Amino acid sequence: MKKPLILVSNDDGITAKGILTLVNVMKQLGNVLVVAPNSPQSGKGHAITVGETLRLTESFIFEEVKAYECSGTPADCVKMARHFVLKDKPQPDVVVSGVNHGSNTSISVLYSGTMSAAIEGAIEGTPAIGFSLCDYSHDADFSHIEEYIKKITLQVLKKSLPKGTALNVNFPPKQKETIKGIRICRQANAKWVEEFDQRFDPNGRNYFWMTGNFVNFDKGEDNDEWAIANNYVSVVPCQFDLTAHSAISVLNEEWEILK
Amino acid sequence: MKKPLILVSNDDGITAKGILTLVNVMKQLGNVLVVAPNSPQSGKGHAITVGETLRLTESFIFEEVKAYECSGTPADCVKMARHFVLKDKPQPDVVVSGVNHGSNTSISVLYSGTMSAAIEGAIEGTPAIGFSLCDYSHDADFSHIEEYIKKITLQVLKKSLPKGTALNVNFPPKQKETIKGIRICRQANAKWVEEFDQRFDPNGRNYFWMTGNFVNFDKGEDNDEWAIANNYVSVVPCQFDLTAHSAISVLNEEWEILK
Repeated sequence: MKKPLILVSNDDGITAKGILTLVNVMKQLGNVLVVAPNSPQSGKGHAITVGETLRLTESFIFEEVKAYECSGTPADCVKMARHFVLKDKPQPDVVVSGVNHGSNTSISVLYSGTMSAAIEGAIEGTPAIGFSLCDYSHDADFSHIEEYIKKITLQVLKKSLPKGTALNVNFPPKQKETIKGIRICRQANAKWVEEFDQRFDPNGRNYFWMTGNFVNFDKGEDNDEWAIANNYVSVVPCQFDLTAHSAISVLNEEWEILK
Repeated sequence: MKKPLILVSNDDGITAKGILTLVNVMKQLGNVLVVAPNSPQSGKGHAITVGETLRLTESFIFEEVKAYECSGTPADCVKMARHFVLKDKPQPDVVVSGVNHGSNTSISVLYSGTMSAAIEGAIEGTPAIGFSLCDYSHDADFSHIEEYIKKITLQVLKKSLPKGTALNVNFPPKQKETIKGIRICRQANAKWVEEFDQRFDPNGRNYFWMTGNFVNFDKGEDNDEWAIANNYVSVVPCQFDLTAHSAISVLNEEWEILK
């Protein structure tokens, strides 16, 4: 069987421990190409670089793996990989992103740079997976999830994914008990409630740190928050069609201004 | 009737002509609060500011309207408005964003800073609308859409919106013929195909401008691209639950690794 071509990106930047973990697992499964940001891009959502220029530089930090660091966002990285690095060449068989240092469950998927790289893959019609570990430490322990990353990627390579979807995979942090298994989930109904920590600079001008508390409203057991809290791997199939299809008929019925 | 409180933001920055248009229309409908970026934030998607600080400064550019300019993204602006400027005060009755200089139809909704401000409103449970004019000019003519902005906002204030949705409203550019009416639409199936224009700086190092061609695959007449092309206002109800619900059963059936 031909070795698959695997495109790897992330949002914590090319020097993060999480992407090193992902590259090392992917080297066992196929030919790897890395295009990743040259600086941390956490919280960048689905940002792209508009009205500014981009840099792309070859990187030699991964052994025996072709890699580039890009000055842009995770979405830029996937676009540059496909339409510049791989222009007129075979395209990736799978796009993987991460492993993110920190959770991307529930509403965090919107803010996630990790997932935007995966969604870019899906937009191009390539099966794509964003991996996140629910541990924000710079030196987080990824050893307990390597087998799961391998299994999930192989499963996606074998069965592909429904059209227009990418997977948002989150792993519980390393605990005494081993992970119980994998759950296919929906995005939990939860949100961040922000607080703004106001401080004053040496010139007396105020500035703010945004902090937040995560609030989970979801009582169900079929969502990603429940899965992580119960030591399962959560897998949420995500789509980039944002249309609230059921709302179309509501508006058509209720709005007087349509006449 | 009590005057509604209307929160206005955008992604082209607080000095753009589009937000001035929106503020002037909203002043006719209620009490207006503006919190908008102090610099252009086009293409920022649903980015938030993580690991960096934020500034918020009162602005006096709108007559008789309380306004602040923020150093962050459109999503940051809405968060700061709610959780700092309006902390412990009545919250907005509606969040409006724009008017964007340029189209946010179809897949562009993902990259849109305009829509991220609206989606933030929806996450907080407030009816929210992103307005975009399909004309990228800095001095675009907004005169033909003011009545529509007013009508749509009043309709949303009257009927509210289905839970968890925000509206993505796009207007055709000014043409000889008047706009035909409003269509409730789904997001068209289309994408951007990027090209990277490689150049060399004075030191001989390469850099890139990302450009793109928009490719519409959609043959339907119920989508936003069709509406704009046929001189209608397109209204797409958008959701922030990205779960591809129909894919859950597919994965549960197909995946051998779930056992």
